Amino acid sequence: MTIKYPNGKKYVTDTKTRTTRQPPLQDSYSNRGMTLEEDLNDTNTFYLERGLAVIHKKPTPVQIVQVDYPRRSAAVIKEAYFKQASTTDYNGVYRGKYVDFEAKETKNATAFPLKNFHRHQITHMKNVEKQKGISFVIIRFTTTGEVFYLPASRLFEYWDRMENGGRKSITKAEIESSGFSIQTGLHPRIPYLSVIDQLYF
Amino acid sequence: MTIKYPNGKKYVTDTKTRTTRQPPLQDSYSNRGMTLEEDLNDTNTFYLERGLAVIHKKPTPVQIVQVDYPRRSAAVIKEAYFKQASTTDYNGVYRGKYVDFEAKETKNATAFPLKNFHRHQITHMKNVEKQKGISFVIIRFTTTGEVFYLPASRLFEYWDRMENGGRKSITKAEIESSGFSIQTGLHPRIPYLSVIDQLYF
Repeated sequence: MTIKYPNGKKYVTDTKTRTTRQPPLQDSYSNRGMTLEEDLNDTNTFYLERGLAVIHKKPTPVQIVQVDYPRRSAAVIKEAYFKQASTTDYNGVYRGKYVDFEAKETKNATAFPLKNFHRHQITHMKNVEKQKGISFVIIRFTTTGEVFYLPASRLFEYWDRMENGGRKSITKAEIESSGFSIQTGLHPRIPYLSVIDQLYF
Repeated sequence: MTIKYPNGKKYVTDTKTRTTRQPPLQDSYSNRGMTLEEDLNDTNTFYLERGLAVIHKKPTPVQIVQVDYPRRSAAVIKEAYFKQASTTDYNGVYRGKYVDFEAKETKNATAFPLKNFHRHQITHMKNVEKQKGISFVIIRFTTTGEVFYLPASRLFEYWDRMENGGRKSITKAEIESSGFSIQTGLHPRIPYLSVIDQLYF
């Protein structure tokens, strides 16, 4: 397994620079969350290769309108549109249990805006909870690089508070008290299974 | 719930004609499996609405190459390509357990060709089994409309037989003896949870 990480240098550099450089992903919505996504994909590959869990990011949902079939070559999609996801981005299996989560990062240093979620996703997470799946969100504050595991049941409380006219975000203090801090590292970068171990096994 | 199915007519017609009309999806690769996919999506919606299970089809994986951002309107994907799926198409949660499957139909009346699966998918199913997920395939013979649930563990036997130089398909008789016949219906159309109940609960 070490063959895949001959020196670890890339990861060290990456981690070191993250907290000092300009907050990434400043104005493009489509890029938002890119770095967290990379870290999670790397984490999931780590878990998969070691036989610890099988968790994948779902493909981006796309509405395909026009496809060309040039002779002797692959079909080319010529017109398509991004669709809003009706579920969360990540799911899979860990020790027989169903695991399902969404990952979001924010530039906001003091609170996490709830507009990062769509109502469909909340509904999906509630359905997963009812089926006794393990449902949560991973939140990163990009200014400090801090990563939290927030159980879906706690997210619902803040979501319902908003729906009842309350604040439209979760304060960082609330996330610190109702969530679990994930110590980021190199292998894996975001070891979220350790929180699942703590909560479910 | 009955509001969604005011007369059931569409379904009755659909089922009646399926066995008598020309086998559908004759030459277009991209259309192959379309009808089975519709039936499974309908089944999954049925299960979801009744709170019985949360199982979704994953979006088709697409490699996006070029995106235009016209002013004041949605981003348009102008060039993209279909990617080979590295996992199966369907997954989700049922009574806490992870459920993962692939669905395929064949025009072949006597055997199911194994070329319908990619090696990546077999690897994925083996990984899921190791994590104690519920892994299987749903196979439909379009000429008769018969649908079978074949546990992944049995599929692996036939796959390995092929890899060892044996036949490149599973005979229908083998599927009948190592799989489980699913009695198709109207609500839901393909009640595969009943097989899971039988095998796991």
